[in-house]
Amino acid sequence: MTPRVAFGAARGYNGLHTTRVLPMRYYALALAALGVLPMTAVSDEGMWLLNDPPRAQLKEKYKFDLTDAWLKNAMLASVRLNSGGSGGFVSPDGLLVTNHHVAADSIQKLSKAGTDLMRDGFYAETREKELKCPDLELNVLQEIVDVTKEVNAAVKPNMTGSDAFAARRAVMSQIEKDSLDKTGLRSDVVTLYNGGLYHLYRYKKYTDVRLVFAPEKAIASFGGDVDNFEYPRMNLDVSFFRAYENGAPAKTPNFLKWSETGPAAGDLVFVTGHPGTTQRLETLARLTHRRDYTLPYTLARLRALEAAMLQFSEQSGENRRQAATDLHSVANARKAFSGQYQGLLDPKIMAQKFESDNDPKLRKQWSEAYEPPQSPLGVTNPGPWANIELIQKAYREFEKPHALFETGHAFASPLFGTARHLVRLADELPKKSPDRLREYRDSNLDSLKFQLFSPAPLYPELERVKLQTSLTFLAEQLGGGHDLVKLALAGKNPAQRAEELIAGTKLFDPAARRALFDGGAKAVSESKDPLIVLAKAVDADARRLRARYETEVEERERQQYAQLAEFRFKAYGSSVAPDATFTLRLAFGTVGGYEVGGQKLNFHTTFGEAFEKSAKLDGREPFDLPKRWLDGKDKLDLKTPFNFVSTADTIGGNSGSPVLNRAGELIGVNFDRNRHGLVRNFVYTDVQARHIAVHSASVLEALRKLYPAAPLVKELTGK
Amino acid sequence: MTPRVAFGAARGYNGLHTTRVLPMRYYALALAALGVLPMTAVSDEGMWLLNDPPRAQLKEKYKFDLTDAWLKNAMLASVRLNSGGSGGFVSPDGLLVTNHHVAADSIQKLSKAGTDLMRDGFYAETREKELKCPDLELNVLQEIVDVTKEVNAAVKPNMTGSDAFAARRAVMSQIEKDSLDKTGLRSDVVTLYNGGLYHLYRYKKYTDVRLVFAPEKAIASFGGDVDNFEYPRMNLDVSFFRAYENGAPAKTPNFLKWSETGPAAGDLVFVTGHPGTTQRLETLARLTHRRDYTLPYTLARLRALEAAMLQFSEQSGENRRQAATDLHSVANARKAFSGQYQGLLDPKIMAQKFESDNDPKLRKQWSEAYEPPQSPLGVTNPGPWANIELIQKAYREFEKPHALFETGHAFASPLFGTARHLVRLADELPKKSPDRLREYRDSNLDSLKFQLFSPAPLYPELERVKLQTSLTFLAEQLGGGHDLVKLALAGKNPAQRAEELIAGTKLFDPAARRALFDGGAKAVSESKDPLIVLAKAVDADARRLRARYETEVEERERQQYAQLAEFRFKAYGSSVAPDATFTLRLAFGTVGGYEVGGQKLNFHTTFGEAFEKSAKLDGREPFDLPKRWLDGKDKLDLKTPFNFVSTADTIGGNSGSPVLNRAGELIGVNFDRNRHGLVRNFVYTDVQARHIAVHSASVLEALRKLYPAAPLVKELTGK
Repeated sequence: MTPRVAFGAARGYNGLHTTRVLPMRYYALALAALGVLPMTAVSDEGMWLLNDPPRAQLKEKYKFDLTDAWLKNAMLASVRLNSGGSGGFVSPDGLLVTNHHVAADSIQKLSKAGTDLMRDGFYAETREKELKCPDLELNVLQEIVDVTKEVNAAVKPNMTGSDAFAARRAVMSQIEKDSLDKTGLRSDVVTLYNGGLYHLYRYKKYTDVRLVFAPEKAIASFGGDVDNFEYPRMNLDVSFFRAYENGAPAKTPNFLKWSETGPAAGDLVFVTGHPGTTQRLETLARLTHRRDYTLPYTLARLRALEAAMLQFSEQSGENRRQAATDLHSVANARKAFSGQYQGLLDPKIMAQKFESDNDPKLRKQWSEAYEPPQSPLGVTNPGPWANIELIQKAYREFEKPHALFETGHAFASPLFGTARHLVRLADELPKKSPDRLREYRDSNLDSLKFQLFSPAPLYPELERVKLQTSLTFLAEQLGGGHDLVKLALAGKNPAQRAEELIAGTKLFDPAARRALFDGGAKAVSESKDPLIVLAKAVDADARRLRARYETEVEERERQQYAQLAEFRFKAYGSSVAPDATFTLRLAFGTVGGYEVGGQKLNFHTTFGEAFEKSAKLDGREPFDLPKRWLDGKDKLDLKTPFNFVSTADTIGGNSGSPVLNRAGELIGVNFDRNRHGLVRNFVYTDVQARHIAVHSASVLEALRKLYPAAPLVKELTGK
Repeated sequence: MTPRVAFGAARGYNGLHTTRVLPMRYYALALAALGVLPMTAVSDEGMWLLNDPPRAQLKEKYKFDLTDAWLKNAMLASVRLNSGGSGGFVSPDGLLVTNHHVAADSIQKLSKAGTDLMRDGFYAETREKELKCPDLELNVLQEIVDVTKEVNAAVKPNMTGSDAFAARRAVMSQIEKDSLDKTGLRSDVVTLYNGGLYHLYRYKKYTDVRLVFAPEKAIASFGGDVDNFEYPRMNLDVSFFRAYENGAPAKTPNFLKWSETGPAAGDLVFVTGHPGTTQRLETLARLTHRRDYTLPYTLARLRALEAAMLQFSEQSGENRRQAATDLHSVANARKAFSGQYQGLLDPKIMAQKFESDNDPKLRKQWSEAYEPPQSPLGVTNPGPWANIELIQKAYREFEKPHALFETGHAFASPLFGTARHLVRLADELPKKSPDRLREYRDSNLDSLKFQLFSPAPLYPELERVKLQTSLTFLAEQLGGGHDLVKLALAGKNPAQRAEELIAGTKLFDPAARRALFDGGAKAVSESKDPLIVLAKAVDADARRLRARYETEVEERERQQYAQLAEFRFKAYGSSVAPDATFTLRLAFGTVGGYEVGGQKLNFHTTFGEAFEKSAKLDGREPFDLPKRWLDGKDKLDLKTPFNFVSTADTIGGNSGSPVLNRAGELIGVNFDRNRHGLVRNFVYTDVQARHIAVHSASVLEALRKLYPAAPLVKELTGK
């Protein structure tokens, strides 16, 4: 499934962090020449900014007038979930639809031994029975303000990389703080085109969010890992929440009308959601680095975690329940990154990237800017392409330690994340907001504390296994004699170390976390909690690696890509969408099937196909159907369209995105790409690549015939 | 479970290859001082040569006289299986017991879609119904001859490493050929003490082996991967074969009498079997290399394969059946190597190894031999410890390419192995036997062809997945731009490459293999079979890496360890067992339980405990019991001892080893170690480490009450 995106992962790793410049549009010729991509007058590529929408393209290709009113309603009805996905309001009373696999984080946290809402599903017949999620936050975009000038003004030409980074961080924090104070809205400065533009995004925030409806996981993820990123697909991957304000359902006058009929073949459709990250304009050197360093590391890490979660799950039914979302999360990421990796090992795709690097129009821009090629400082300037290659060379030297120690891959338990936040908050809070590490800026503190003090259940044995696995992975990656490994293991082997950390920590208890937060630097410095002691012990090295990453990689790359962006703006104009940044975007496309190996796949599946496939595979997991479905088969119209596909441009983070028709009605809920779409991080194609959505009619049919959910249907349809 | 050992794995990897010198006995003091190991007058450590048995130790500690008659019967009744384990004759008519997980290789090959002997078990009520295994070979040791002098005489003092290696290989091949011609027996020269001794082992060989009885996998491996390497344990991990000669059951007058009663607590017991490999006397530098290079690589490789096999298995019941033994094999290895890795990350164990390297008596030997420390060539000799460290440094440079290309980890399908053999046979057979790569010597050809032309089924989709996984792993390890990767992938990504190799090859058909073999160099050179073309394309690099390994690592290490062995012989005498070499050894120990976390574990489990554990875990896989067992529960005496443990010294390869009492009767069938025994590759301990065996009484009780196997019981007991 479209991977969820870590919330606020401004400093994430593995492609979940920085934005890059401009989409692939202008390569159409080169790609077509390579025989890989179709050449169309206007392709459906692009994850467009809501304040710079593709009006001209829609007009030209689809004769569609994108009105301000259409856009405004779509924006105010689109929702970002801090569990890493998208959703949309579907009633004026705060009712929200998203994917089951996005809701799963909350559904899991609302479950306990004996009450498995993932397995059994959930429906609140009355509002009183809706279940409050422990730590789910919703953001609804209200306004976008261009702050590029203010941000750029803070960075002076002669600053060192380190100073430039600090100055930019400070001004962004200040803008966000001022905006929050002025509007009361969550305010985030978003870096677009990797520094070409800075936009302030203002969000309405909901932290009282309640579960209304979830189907059984067996039908939400029918086919499980086997069918993930595959099509045809038969998944009821939807859940409903309700946003509350002041203890009452939130008023959401801008909502999406639920379509009874859904799309037809050839229909123009829109996706409004929060695509996480793309790397379409990265240079060949950057992608080669991903191929040869980042992705092999990532795949090894995910496999180690997945194996550990599987082995933990095998031990009992209750273990299986506890690990379900962790396991899904790593398996899903493993499949997505495996697809990316095969893409980067495909010589055809790398040849395209070679062509991109050698685009004559950009090369001309460069030679005109620096003729003869040299830097403004008088030394020979090898150009952004070669400079980016040099940056990768520097990055290699400390990428693994940085990922393990600062990103935290060596300590794969949320308990360590909590310990680190407590340790760092004690250091950072006494500073002025603009001088803090970015995640501790004033405007982000409420959201951070909401997570930090979450009462969501954690299971000691599960956390122990994750810690042992990640500490072992640390040793595997750096070697048992490495200083950082010895620091983390403290004279034990990973098994013994994980055991003592989990046995000794009090951080399972939210009250213990709050006490340390309230106690500040003194409490943290005196704490003997082994996880706090660990977080303190590794912090100097982790901060050192972070600073090195920021100055030697992030800042330097930003400068090079900004230069490339400038060349591209000059050569090709500015009417292109930026790479994805887990902010609201509009994509468009055409509903339509495709061919694989001579076989034509229809644009939608049906309920009947789910029953057929399950029967063919003896109802064996993950092709088992819930009892409710088996018993209720005769009640269903088996021809009901279940899932459908379109060419619209999506990526991880788009999970749960509303799919709209020309009238702005909700006709589907996006939940996945097919495997041909796994290379979308790097290139857009529409020959076979499709996103996959739950058909709006299937949700109504299932709710009406199988679930005792008449009030929910009435709220959606008025009937 | 005790991992199976690749047959004839003279050139294996990951610790499955070379022998090392002497056991840990003389460290007893140092270890005891560290508080880790118990200090006993005589410990139960040792995997003893049958021609140099531990008579004195047995006399001193157990007052047991090991007679020649006892030894001879044990030797002639002990069997090595080419599927990588051990077994024992248990009737005069060629009836043989081994583990189910050793037999699994053949049981799987005898299964097909719709006939799943792994799941359902098998019993041949009459000899006519016994099923002939497609490629199972048994070896029964008949005689050991010391050929140390002949081998050493061939290697002259001034030879280069490469010449020394070739000369030794040649003389060994010649000795084997002469022995085969003279006796008609399979003849293998075995390197003991890593070059301290060379013994010729003569085996009687059986290649007509038929399946008599196998229980359902669910009871043979009750608890599956979860309980693997754990105790308490309730596994009926046994199967029976029968050896045939000239179409009739083989006469095996030397067999082991099946004990009705089995062992009591405190009993002296013996294990006769074929332990694969140990590394107890490796230096700290060698073990550090394993910790920081070999094991992380191995774990990454196994996890990639395991994940792929799991994902393949999830797709359907038939896929699951096809992948069952492959999946078990990698999961088992992963668990064993994970235990080893935690052991090497344990600072206490590494401290022991540091002490070993700095043993004053050995250091004294060294300084006396080379005072002042220098080599015979006049240059300063840093001693074997430092030299071995230098060898590791050289090894690091090409260990991965060697493992991937020559050991074949990049091409993880038996079809590639077949292709490589065909390509190399075409090159090697025209040479004289002593000049060939060792596996193609005349005396080994029959066994090799038996494997090569095996009609055992292979499944295209399964082989495709394994190839894709291993080709992907190749790229992950070396990087997508590495010459060897480009050579192997030939302009495709791993997914595309695996698809074209499997779609195009004819090697699934044994007749196609035979045609290429018969056609020799001309047929192979003209072949367009994509796997043959691949094997030809990579062969020059693979051979180059092999030669480099042999001369820069294998030969050099052998010289250094031989020097260390010489020091040890002088300091501590020669009454010590060599490290394991997948040849017949005798171990001894005491039957007895142990404590874990304050809990006392009995020396045996019972049938009742299997039913209790299954019920407690809702009969969920891998804790499901076969229908036969659930239905027949009331017929069973639930107090019957099921599995038991003793302190005897075992390792991978000992799977299926007969466990004998003082009278030489079979009282159990070894099948595993507990997790405390996973560090036995490096150190022997008896505080908690135990091997685990199926109790002889449990086999009889199950056969009598649950299976319609009266004739088998009668053959075992005479009743």
